[in-house]
Amino acid sequence: MSAALVIFGATGDLARRKLLPALFTLHCKRSLPDDLRIVGFARGELTHADYCANLWAGMDGYADLTCRDDVWPSFAERVTFVQGDLAHAEDVARLERTLADAERGQREANRLYYLSIAPQLYAPAVASLRANGMHEDHGGWRRVVVEKPFGRDGASAAELDNALHAAFDEERVYRIDHYLGKETVQNLLVLRFANAIFEPVWDRAHVDNVQITVAEEVDVGTRAGYYDASGALRDMAQNHLLQLLTLVAMEPPASMGADDLHREKARTLAAVRRWRTPQEAAAHAVAGQYDGYLEAEGVAADSKTPTFAALRLYVDTPRWQGVPFHLRTGKAMAAKSTEIAVQFRAPPSSLVNLGGGEPQANRLGLCIQPHEGVHLRFQVKTPGPGAEASTRDLEFHYAQAFSDQSIPEAYERLLKDALMGDRALFIPAEQIREAWEIMDPLLAAWEAPDAARPRPYPRGSWGPAAADALAAETGHAWLSTCGEHV
Amino acid sequence: MSAALVIFGATGDLARRKLLPALFTLHCKRSLPDDLRIVGFARGELTHADYCANLWAGMDGYADLTCRDDVWPSFAERVTFVQGDLAHAEDVARLERTLADAERGQREANRLYYLSIAPQLYAPAVASLRANGMHEDHGGWRRVVVEKPFGRDGASAAELDNALHAAFDEERVYRIDHYLGKETVQNLLVLRFANAIFEPVWDRAHVDNVQITVAEEVDVGTRAGYYDASGALRDMAQNHLLQLLTLVAMEPPASMGADDLHREKARTLAAVRRWRTPQEAAAHAVAGQYDGYLEAEGVAADSKTPTFAALRLYVDTPRWQGVPFHLRTGKAMAAKSTEIAVQFRAPPSSLVNLGGGEPQANRLGLCIQPHEGVHLRFQVKTPGPGAEASTRDLEFHYAQAFSDQSIPEAYERLLKDALMGDRALFIPAEQIREAWEIMDPLLAAWEAPDAARPRPYPRGSWGPAAADALAAETGHAWLSTCGEHV
Repeated sequence: MSAALVIFGATGDLARRKLLPALFTLHCKRSLPDDLRIVGFARGELTHADYCANLWAGMDGYADLTCRDDVWPSFAERVTFVQGDLAHAEDVARLERTLADAERGQREANRLYYLSIAPQLYAPAVASLRANGMHEDHGGWRRVVVEKPFGRDGASAAELDNALHAAFDEERVYRIDHYLGKETVQNLLVLRFANAIFEPVWDRAHVDNVQITVAEEVDVGTRAGYYDASGALRDMAQNHLLQLLTLVAMEPPASMGADDLHREKARTLAAVRRWRTPQEAAAHAVAGQYDGYLEAEGVAADSKTPTFAALRLYVDTPRWQGVPFHLRTGKAMAAKSTEIAVQFRAPPSSLVNLGGGEPQANRLGLCIQPHEGVHLRFQVKTPGPGAEASTRDLEFHYAQAFSDQSIPEAYERLLKDALMGDRALFIPAEQIREAWEIMDPLLAAWEAPDAARPRPYPRGSWGPAAADALAAETGHAWLSTCGEHV
Repeated sequence: MSAALVIFGATGDLARRKLLPALFTLHCKRSLPDDLRIVGFARGELTHADYCANLWAGMDGYADLTCRDDVWPSFAERVTFVQGDLAHAEDVARLERTLADAERGQREANRLYYLSIAPQLYAPAVASLRANGMHEDHGGWRRVVVEKPFGRDGASAAELDNALHAAFDEERVYRIDHYLGKETVQNLLVLRFANAIFEPVWDRAHVDNVQITVAEEVDVGTRAGYYDASGALRDMAQNHLLQLLTLVAMEPPASMGADDLHREKARTLAAVRRWRTPQEAAAHAVAGQYDGYLEAEGVAADSKTPTFAALRLYVDTPRWQGVPFHLRTGKAMAAKSTEIAVQFRAPPSSLVNLGGGEPQANRLGLCIQPHEGVHLRFQVKTPGPGAEASTRDLEFHYAQAFSDQSIPEAYERLLKDALMGDRALFIPAEQIREAWEIMDPLLAAWEAPDAARPRPYPRGSWGPAAADALAAETGHAWLSTCGEHV
């Protein structure tokens, strides 16, 4: 396959730390198409040599392979740098000429445009592409990759989509949430649908509640300025938390193909019970802000931006009706952990409280990071003369079970898929729309002028006590399934 | 509780290697009733000092505790030795006087008679007890413990029961199959009934087949004489294999109490489909004999005794109808392993053969010995660009999970239970009767004068090829779930 990968924002953080290292790794693994050209586009006044030198410096600590010096020159040959401003149609016209020159004489000339730029630049970039006719499939396909955030709310996401759709129909738009490229996130679907024992207990008759945690130990750090205009709901809940919920709650798709998968995911998001008013939303969620956040540079002195969010959702499908889905995310938390806990109902007590103890419920812990694995909490007989049961884990650790294989970076997978036209792990507009529809009332509640301040919580904690109270409303407590056993 | 534990056959192998070490261990753990006396009865001309010296020598390698020299004297104080022949009523009368002397003045005088003797001596022993009125509850209870084998077939087991019941009603008869005292066997019930996730898939809709293996690496060794008159069906299948099958297949009992448990176990054995003729039995089983067995001392030159047996049974309950239960046991096998494999149905292939591979079924491996644990075979995503699933295990290892606790010997548990009157882990006559009813047609087939010779198999193998063919008849292959992953 002959293709050009055009990176807008080619000197930015994402390009330097994620995209180019992933491409280099793919190159080292001989996983890139032979005639893939990588064209960087940015405003900086750089020569090709400067740009490559910058890239090479950026590989350190990011590209995770032993192949280095000897392979670099053949990678650098793929790379071209074009200086320009994407808001200026004439700069983009120059880019077009560079691309067209390289494509001359090729039977097939495909292009993947990667918008590694701020969302407010999407519309100008797309306009420039359009002005130069670069959006039209023309001797090959034209696709565009966009990065989250996909809007700030439902309305702005719709605007963004309008801008994109002005030049690219939905089938050619690849929205990246790198979470979906993670091996252990993809494993959720394999776990659910390649194991006949889970599906029969994966419903309201057997599951007591589901908990999804995306906790970061770090605080906002140097991103405070960006973060303060965003907050936990936009940064994590609308995308990561809801995507994980979808993978847990969705019905089996007709196939694992992109269309079937997307249809079921959208159906699931559509079935998430909506809060009809901001008041109702606020009553089912807790906003938190870690102590000291207001002192961070770039944060407004009276900022009400939540650095922590906990919420309870319901998925109103026949499978899940009545089962609480507890979601939480935060910064400056007690641990870095992305995990899903599927808590099953307790066994009948008549047969197990033999030693006078309470029956403990089974719990499937799907550990996404940092310790990828599966923990199935179960009960075994405590050795000894009694008949007491003890709670232990059946354990599986990815790193141990596949110690001979390195787990690929999410961007390796996603860049490859975008080049191959596999949209399964990208997010269609429909899901974005549904996700904002879920979150908009809560955003409205928390961002109203008279909204209460977020609850303070100490750094290194699991958030404010009000989050525990929220879980307790349905008789639950937050679980930390993976961290206990690493 | 004041009680005497009277051991008939007090100088025998079982007493020396199992019973007294278990009692000493219980003593060390302060788990014996304070005024439990241990009265050994045997024909040997031994003084009390001789007997204790023999016991002390026997502890080495059997009693598994650090408590030794300092505690031994207080244990030895519990022990009395009475010389005599249990077939002679006058010798037993002397035993009675010894017991009565010790009981004088006590408010409560309980006695547990342990028949650690050959089965043909049960009737004479019981007759002697009866002749001296020693069977009658009299200021305390009288119970009798008998060891397997419980007969050679249904008819002889009924005779044995008649002999026992002439003096002891069924509630006072404690039949020991030490397998049931093993922690990991008891754990089967905890696993099944204290975990809400297993019960919903524990049926014909979800289980493809069940396999139970009791394999020994050793050959008949010095027990050839005894073994040649017994064989694999009597030695292992009628008792251990069927008991394990019962624990897997039984319905949840109303409680874990002895009566409720026994009722359900008997119901399960009664539901095992009977072979109506020896021919039908032979068609569902394979007899094997390891190469070289005929050369062992004590084995008849033309012996047809099977040292290996494989059979396919069906449990005709609503839960299990149509699910094959594959059972096998043998000596001189490839490994020492007692394990149960519950093989579930394969997942629907539409969602899993993503990489072109076949979907693998889940499998729950219940590993009883030598590596006690649980292996739940499942599928996870293979790291890498594809969507293939790999088969791995969720694992639990008893020794690792309870490294701070020693796993008690089966006899510790069973002796304690018999003293406490807990019959749950003992086997009532009803189950023995049902088990022989299942096995009798196969015994008749294999022991008919014109029966074929057992199939030869090499030492260190998994039995004759015909056993594989037997499993293949229902589309299955024998599984070795635990051994693969130790």
